[in-house]
Amino acid sequence: MDKKQRIDVNKKYFNNISSRERAIFEGGISMGALFHQFIGTPVSINSVEMLEKSIEQSLELQPCVVQVDVVINRKKLEELNTEFDYVSLSGDMLNVNIITEFNEIKAYIKMEYVDELKYPLMYITDLK
Amino acid sequence: MDKKQRIDVNKKYFNNISSRERAIFEGGISMGALFHQFIGTPVSINSVEMLEKSIEQSLELQPCVVQVDVVINRKKLEELNTEFDYVSLSGDMLNVNIITEFNEIKAYIKMEYVDELKYPLMYITDLK
Amino acid sequence: MDKKQRIDVNKKYFNNISSRERAIFEGGISMGALFHQFIGTPVSINSVEMLEKSIEQSLELQPCVVQVDVVINRKKLEELNTEFDYVSLSGDMLNVNIITEFNEIKAYIKMEYVDELKYPLMYITDLK
Amino acid sequence: MDKKQRIDVNKKYFNNISSRERAIFEGGISMGALFHQFIGTPVSINSVEMLEKSIEQSLELQPCVVQVDVVINRKKLEELNTEFDYVSLSGDMLNVNIITEFNEIKAYIKMEYVDELKYPLMYITDLK
Repeated sequence: MDKKQRIDVNKKYFNNISSRERAIFEGGISMGALFHQFIGTPVSINSVEMLEKSIEQSLELQPCVVQVDVVINRKKLEELNTEFDYVSLSGDMLNVNIITEFNEIKAYIKMEYVDELKYPLMYITDLK
Repeated sequence: MDKKQRIDVNKKYFNNISSRERAIFEGGISMGALFHQFIGTPVSINSVEMLEKSIEQSLELQPCVVQVDVVINRKKLEELNTEFDYVSLSGDMLNVNIITEFNEIKAYIKMEYVDELKYPLMYITDLK
Repeated sequence: MDKKQRIDVNKKYFNNISSRERAIFEGGISMGALFHQFIGTPVSINSVEMLEKSIEQSLELQPCVVQVDVVINRKKLEELNTEFDYVSLSGDMLNVNIITEFNEIKAYIKMEYVDELKYPLMYITDLK
Repeated sequence: MDKKQRIDVNKKYFNNISSRERAIFEGGISMGALFHQFIGTPVSINSVEMLEKSIEQSLELQPCVVQVDVVINRKKLEELNTEFDYVSLSGDMLNVNIITEFNEIKAYIKMEYVDELKYPLMYITDLK
């Protein structure tokens, strides 16, 4: 796709929101996508690094995403010691940071498991 | 959870964005979640209605989501006529509308397959 | 597809295994599919019944599958009481029975979370 | 887990099927798992190699799986040229070979998209 076409998409579909809102929207999409695509993936202490990188590369393809950092909790992987020495990736093991950008406005989106909420919370840490 | 706690979460994690931005953010999360959770699900002309309802109910659980409407393209289901009379749900079959709300600001989020883009585009149709 | 074609597929691709092995193979596929398709789905005490039925209908479309019974543990749903009153479906909440059949041989496949293994084990309970 | 425990699991849950059937069963599970876990993942010509390796490593963790080879069709990735230069991984792009083993019996499982069936067929190519 050439740059001209991409600009037209933005004009046609996104001219009703600000650059900041666009960055927030795309960040939300990518966080929801990441969680629901990869939760359930078999993972062990040996495969964890490759899985992190693969998740990062996959989500960096999404519109407006400039950087994805995924950390899967090694301690939980080591503790688990299940029958088969691996587990299904779950929300309490994931810590993710995504940076999105639109028209030079950046949104910093975070997902982390908040123990007191028992919930993998997605929120925005910075906008600039 | 009582209402007090929910307000604290909003204060602690979301006081850096507007109500409108929060509605947009949660809408993005839920669209990304929906797509990546359910793409690949076996579906036929006989199971399609139940699947639509189940997707709607599941996503309506997400924070700030007040309504989800899912339409899976029957024509594509009928045309396909594969060996086994069902297909894996794909992005070109999905048309979704989600309404999110935060502090009386509503965001109307749409996903539809745009033929000229060959892409299931997620965008915002209204905010009020 | 007419019946003739279906028989040809069986001849072309599956003439190297017995009817019993075919029923086992298709049962394994469907169990793996079910787990990895639906793990992560948002679910609450209110949406659980619809989700169970939708999973059953979806998997009953797969080749050789004659019946799918899904039970999601209500006790775990009620206990959880997270911030947002729903959870992501996880392996420890699922109890599934699938019956597959090929040439009048039936395989009864089970998935249940085995606490001592900390693992959602899939195995065969009967063949006849 | 020590070897003793693993043997007990086999005795307790799998003594009603042959070694050949066990290899077939686990191969079916892993093929169904692979398809339904990773379908929908964003992928481009640049990320494809990492994704293949990550899928292989993840599925090689499953019980009885000794080798997984995943090839994602580059031609389809190059042809697509969508608005955003990536696509969601779909069944027609996947060619997978899995080798499972139980008690020295190996099953060779294949998934490939069969054009005349319009279907990503999973079948067994060899047993020995």
